[in-house]
Amino acid sequence: MSKQKKDARPTPRLPRGLRDIEAAELRQQQAMLGKIRSVYELYGFEPLETPAFEYTDALGKFLPDQDRPNEGVFSLQDEDEQWMSLRYDLTAPLARYVAQHYQFIAKPFRRYATGYVFRNEKPGPGRFRQFMQFDADTVGADSVAADAEMCMLAADTLEALGIKRGDYVIKVNNRKVLDAVMTSIGIGGDDNAAKRLTVLRAIDKFDRLGAEGVRELLGKGRKDESGDFTKGAELDDAGIEAILGFTAALAGSNDETLSKLRAITDTEGVAELAQIAELTASAGYGVDRIRIDPSVIRGLEYYTGPVFEAELTFEVKDEKGNPVRFGSVGGGGRYDDLVARFTGQKVPATGFSIGVSRLQAALAVLNRDSAPPADGPVIVTVMEKERIADYQKMVHTLRAAGIRAELYLGNPKKFGKQLEYADKRGSPCVVIQGSDERDAGKVTLKDLIEGAKAAEAIKDHEEWKEQRPAQVTVDAADLVAEVQAIIARHASSRPLSG
Amino acid sequence: MSKQKKDARPTPRLPRGLRDIEAAELRQQQAMLGKIRSVYELYGFEPLETPAFEYTDALGKFLPDQDRPNEGVFSLQDEDEQWMSLRYDLTAPLARYVAQHYQFIAKPFRRYATGYVFRNEKPGPGRFRQFMQFDADTVGADSVAADAEMCMLAADTLEALGIKRGDYVIKVNNRKVLDAVMTSIGIGGDDNAAKRLTVLRAIDKFDRLGAEGVRELLGKGRKDESGDFTKGAELDDAGIEAILGFTAALAGSNDETLSKLRAITDTEGVAELAQIAELTASAGYGVDRIRIDPSVIRGLEYYTGPVFEAELTFEVKDEKGNPVRFGSVGGGGRYDDLVARFTGQKVPATGFSIGVSRLQAALAVLNRDSAPPADGPVIVTVMEKERIADYQKMVHTLRAAGIRAELYLGNPKKFGKQLEYADKRGSPCVVIQGSDERDAGKVTLKDLIEGAKAAEAIKDHEEWKEQRPAQVTVDAADLVAEVQAIIARHASSRPLSG
Repeated sequence: MSKQKKDARPTPRLPRGLRDIEAAELRQQQAMLGKIRSVYELYGFEPLETPAFEYTDALGKFLPDQDRPNEGVFSLQDEDEQWMSLRYDLTAPLARYVAQHYQFIAKPFRRYATGYVFRNEKPGPGRFRQFMQFDADTVGADSVAADAEMCMLAADTLEALGIKRGDYVIKVNNRKVLDAVMTSIGIGGDDNAAKRLTVLRAIDKFDRLGAEGVRELLGKGRKDESGDFTKGAELDDAGIEAILGFTAALAGSNDETLSKLRAITDTEGVAELAQIAELTASAGYGVDRIRIDPSVIRGLEYYTGPVFEAELTFEVKDEKGNPVRFGSVGGGGRYDDLVARFTGQKVPATGFSIGVSRLQAALAVLNRDSAPPADGPVIVTVMEKERIADYQKMVHTLRAAGIRAELYLGNPKKFGKQLEYADKRGSPCVVIQGSDERDAGKVTLKDLIEGAKAAEAIKDHEEWKEQRPAQVTVDAADLVAEVQAIIARHASSRPLSG
Repeated sequence: MSKQKKDARPTPRLPRGLRDIEAAELRQQQAMLGKIRSVYELYGFEPLETPAFEYTDALGKFLPDQDRPNEGVFSLQDEDEQWMSLRYDLTAPLARYVAQHYQFIAKPFRRYATGYVFRNEKPGPGRFRQFMQFDADTVGADSVAADAEMCMLAADTLEALGIKRGDYVIKVNNRKVLDAVMTSIGIGGDDNAAKRLTVLRAIDKFDRLGAEGVRELLGKGRKDESGDFTKGAELDDAGIEAILGFTAALAGSNDETLSKLRAITDTEGVAELAQIAELTASAGYGVDRIRIDPSVIRGLEYYTGPVFEAELTFEVKDEKGNPVRFGSVGGGGRYDDLVARFTGQKVPATGFSIGVSRLQAALAVLNRDSAPPADGPVIVTVMEKERIADYQKMVHTLRAAGIRAELYLGNPKKFGKQLEYADKRGSPCVVIQGSDERDAGKVTLKDLIEGAKAAEAIKDHEEWKEQRPAQVTVDAADLVAEVQAIIARHASSRPLSG
């Protein structure tokens, strides 16, 4: 309350789970989106953008069954009382688009899309209510070749972003295989839906709990360190062994994994995985890049066939020196039922989605030591206030030569403030023209990057003033050439960066 | 109701005022945003992105004084009952950001931003509820040089987008001048706020009603063709003449316009306009590009000093052959009070905003006759279904050489469908390998663009089959080189485009 002034000024703040993105991160994001776009284009996908809003019933999944729509999405009522929601992913709007324009689009329809999606969920560290995705989808192709292509697209995209081979893997599983295994142990059918979900959740905890923990969750249940008890799926021993045998079928080569799977359940799903392995291998993608992995779950309630998970496998140290793995940065799979929601007609579809913000965080850590170069604007300082038009003209001359430049627009009284500003902006140099230089037809250029280095070596303030390191006075006519020379000198002394 | 099936399938549709953006338009938008960004960067602005949502009270202007917030914005309540709104422009979030981080940002703070904004207004032709803006703002500079820079930025941006000198003009006015004129005729002060608004609205109708119509609206009022009467500002004759004299002060040169204005009211506002004229002229921007124009209004209730309007002046014909002028595609001005809403401390600021969607529509008409080239992917067709891995490998080889390519992923049974698909996608050529070619180590390339031209010249279907125009069979090992040759041939025969 003490913050509130009597005229009730609002506090400048953001709702939780939302954030501002500043220049350095935005530039990285821009570069990253460009690289992803290039790969998706190379694969023949075409861009499509749908609006941030859709009718809630068209988005599906989250329907407003009460006055207040379900959690998970942001919803509001239009003037005609219809509920609208902000998109929570890019797939649901694609299904709406395809259903709406089915007759007019070239099929298979290959589209890519990028943009923000919104989740009305509890935010946490690295977990926001607005984040960016970058998706590619092929609609109208039931060929497994379309799924195989998604895996190759994922691998190529990660490599285009500078992630080395061996530092990532695209894991592939198939919902049909797990369904077959569950049916074989007697938990198929609608009656067992809840039990199957418990099984999926148990498998999904493999990374965290290991085989023993999963075994308990598949059986009677498990008590964790805090003493809390989680009820299990209550499978019998044979059932538990079947599930564990399936998830442990991962082997050193895709062929071996497939052999193990065939021994468990020689069904359509395994045949599809074999085709994916063959298609990707024939294009040169080995098991180090695209790997059949029966332990991959991934929102299986949504998919109807192959599922993919793009994982970063390298380990980095966080600020405290603890090892961190980023894990999943994208995924996808086949979903043959989404368009049918609208039209009743089954339309096969498969897709892959990158979590842009998450992947960018991983890349930032990976490139932590190759800091981006200072590429701020050249600052033309103001020495004589009444000569602003002259300084503005210098700025214009620099810009016309393609040099990023600006006039110092703050209060010019304190010259030190102008240099401080130039420093903060990462300027390569400042341009100075006082009365002496003006009369002599000269300008002074102060190289801020060299200057900072030199300043480190000079202890005494008086000495600094005497030497004026990295400062040259040149003919005003040579302004552009001299500034270009300073920028070129910085560029050549810069460490190489991606 | 007849559309609703018994399982109540939703209709695939969008809320009014929202739209999908398809590939060709998105690519143009992408190119356009890149060019705008380059100019803004050259001017030394840094990118900033704020989220789509803000707290409604932080956005200001539209406060929820009832259960349902005012019209104009899309608002919804967070779980803690606080109202949030989708941003309706990029300036209000900037003010919030600056107020929040004032101590830590380099000042003057120069930022650019682009993104969608949302207006909960009645949509109409070319008027959407979600549209894109691209803004540059300088916060913390009270120098008129910052305003002059915005005008130059606007001019440079339009030229970078291919709009020729003479086809646009940046009009500049100053709120302070109009305020001085209104005070001089006795309608200053809080009591006359409503009257001043009526005057502003009257001036704003100059384009549509001409001097006589405006004169009526400044006086007793005006009856339009339909017989509706609009009440006027009820100025006396001297007042009317003063206002009309002011708006008619536009002359052939900025100096002449300024002389006329000085004769009417020799105040600070005119001095600022004179400075803008001087600064822009000294950097080489003539009156053909940056023009002092006292008739420019532009949301004057929001601005506190100079205001700018970027106008396209060329005339085009619409589809029916009627002349159309696009008019305003952007604008801005000085707003010194927005940050003070939060902090109480006055922070001078000025900015310029481009209406991206509107400008893109204008550019599309301007470039109507230079259609973008067909740059679809090369399609590798499927002749023998069991050899998909071989075809996939060809696709991979093409992609590895940087050629946009894809495997035909639809049902391969009807070969004609595959060619039809390639045509729809704007493919330069398709790759064909049937059993004959396979045995001979060959592939057939069908040049679709040459083929279409040749097909026009051939009347008879049999003749076409005989000649197989624009089709070559080459060694499979030469696939990449031969496809590159076809693409290069198309590129060289293409009309030049921007």
